[in-house]
Amino acid sequence: MPEQSQTEIFDLGDFQLSTGFILSNAKLAYKTHGKLNAAKDNAILFPHFLGGAPEALEIYIGEDRPLDPRKYFIILPGLLGNGVSSSPSNTAAPFDRGAFPQTHIADDVIAQHRLVTEKFGIDELYLVLGWSVGALQTYEWAVRFPHMVKRAASIAGAPKPSPWTLLWLRTAIEEPILADPAWNNGFYTDPQAVQAGLRRQAHVMALTLPPLGFYREGEEVWRAIGFASMDDFVSRFWEAFMLPQDPNNLINQSRKTRAADPSAGGDLSAALSRIKAQMFVVAFTGDRMFPPEECQRDAERIPNAKYWEVNSIGGHLTTFSLTEQDRQAMDDVLRQVLTA
Amino acid sequence: MPEQSQTEIFDLGDFQLSTGFILSNAKLAYKTHGKLNAAKDNAILFPHFLGGAPEALEIYIGEDRPLDPRKYFIILPGLLGNGVSSSPSNTAAPFDRGAFPQTHIADDVIAQHRLVTEKFGIDELYLVLGWSVGALQTYEWAVRFPHMVKRAASIAGAPKPSPWTLLWLRTAIEEPILADPAWNNGFYTDPQAVQAGLRRQAHVMALTLPPLGFYREGEEVWRAIGFASMDDFVSRFWEAFMLPQDPNNLINQSRKTRAADPSAGGDLSAALSRIKAQMFVVAFTGDRMFPPEECQRDAERIPNAKYWEVNSIGGHLTTFSLTEQDRQAMDDVLRQVLTA
Repeated sequence: MPEQSQTEIFDLGDFQLSTGFILSNAKLAYKTHGKLNAAKDNAILFPHFLGGAPEALEIYIGEDRPLDPRKYFIILPGLLGNGVSSSPSNTAAPFDRGAFPQTHIADDVIAQHRLVTEKFGIDELYLVLGWSVGALQTYEWAVRFPHMVKRAASIAGAPKPSPWTLLWLRTAIEEPILADPAWNNGFYTDPQAVQAGLRRQAHVMALTLPPLGFYREGEEVWRAIGFASMDDFVSRFWEAFMLPQDPNNLINQSRKTRAADPSAGGDLSAALSRIKAQMFVVAFTGDRMFPPEECQRDAERIPNAKYWEVNSIGGHLTTFSLTEQDRQAMDDVLRQVLTA
Repeated sequence: MPEQSQTEIFDLGDFQLSTGFILSNAKLAYKTHGKLNAAKDNAILFPHFLGGAPEALEIYIGEDRPLDPRKYFIILPGLLGNGVSSSPSNTAAPFDRGAFPQTHIADDVIAQHRLVTEKFGIDELYLVLGWSVGALQTYEWAVRFPHMVKRAASIAGAPKPSPWTLLWLRTAIEEPILADPAWNNGFYTDPQAVQAGLRRQAHVMALTLPPLGFYREGEEVWRAIGFASMDDFVSRFWEAFMLPQDPNNLINQSRKTRAADPSAGGDLSAALSRIKAQMFVVAFTGDRMFPPEECQRDAERIPNAKYWEVNSIGGHLTTFSLTEQDRQAMDDVLRQVLTA
């Protein structure tokens, strides 16, 4: 288990977003584990995924875990729009709820850069890593601040969403919310009023994210990870993950994911060629969101990249270490990234 | 092009469903091509898929096509609940609209059996074949009337839906309709009032049915089949397919698909072992709905079955012959089935 750590707030002041809006008294939530050493060269930045929170992947942190806080200073920043950092759910009018301005991955990385430099005085990060939308942030970091990122690991991610991922975000995340009459253009009074939409999100996620082995007769991975039936898995895993979320926050995160692009509309290959970090591009067998063949193609566009495919059970969900095989595979990935 | 053929109606009279309800003046729609020969041994029965109609796969019928009406008498029966046979959309009170009783695949096959025997006096079908929900009917035929089916072809199908298919039916077909406020428990006055739900169905189908190559940069199969963009494909292929449908009819078809089981809750392997037909189990590479490894497992439970996997572009959609490669592959499948 990681040492206890409280969620902290870094005050961004009046923070100008890439859209031009200024968020007054903007907040970036974060957690840390371990201590920054005197040379300030042991910092790891580990941003989170869509619907996540700074503590979402603390399973990798601990004295017997790959991210050892005795050795590393681990910073877990919270996405803008995640409900803890400045978000539709916690911002005052005129930017409350459905009127919160759209944030972008570039805004997140700029806010994180300010935390890393202003709060901690760090010039170079030993490692930036992330899974899924965390990987989108990792790419943005490696392209935007190439001299600050010593190594970077994209785990089941990409520099920008694929066309299928765009369709997924619209269909799995946005439409179920937007079609719920209780959505009311984002001006609901209780997020739970939109629970039917949140459940339908959960169902489309359950349909599209686990590899087929999760459901197939004779395999039924849900059984091995502690569920009594497919329906139990859909309810207690997927609905349980989505129901506590705030719909406006999810829409904000989905749209920023759709718009992610480290080349900002320019030449993506040229942007990737500017990466200075030792880059690790890790893909999971059976991941429909970030298929291995697409990750490999990304890696080929980066000057100093190592690609590898993890033969996993969980597909895109491998990062959650739901099975012992996936846990060992992921631990091995992180240990190789840290020591390469 | 097939010779012209009108949709005919076979009167089933007071037709008792497997649920116990009696449909008064029940109707089975059908089309035929070709002529029944004197020996009555050239009949092919080709039932249709969820959301289809008797004419849905007439692309395979014609003098230069695998199902040649000069040689075969081809019967295309319409599912109960398809809007032409007795359906929620065309039945009088008390069984109108949302109150139409649930029909099952067994009901369809019993109705088709009456058409084949009473109307045409056929004792044995040269071939029963079907794709997807058409294949579910094919299995029901081969198990229920083993001495009447000389050969049978399941094309991208199964005897009963897999767990993932159950989740798909609920998530892709039923929930988008049931969540639409205009659904009104099936007592809408205009099916188009439920158009938002029909569109969301189309989007989940677009997300889940085509292989990833349809969307992947550099492949973009939508381009090869005549669409201008991914969004154009989603609109003019998927929405165009779903928007003319009646929501109650779709719910009826989805629920009958979910309940399909030629063993009627018994021992499926024992049921499949009773098949007398020469059975062809055809799977498509990249089909998530009926994955090749699952189809192969089905084939192994049938006494006289030949399994083969078609290396296709379209995955589950290969049957639509959207590309020339898929058209040739499907034509080859049918020609082999007919001459084996």
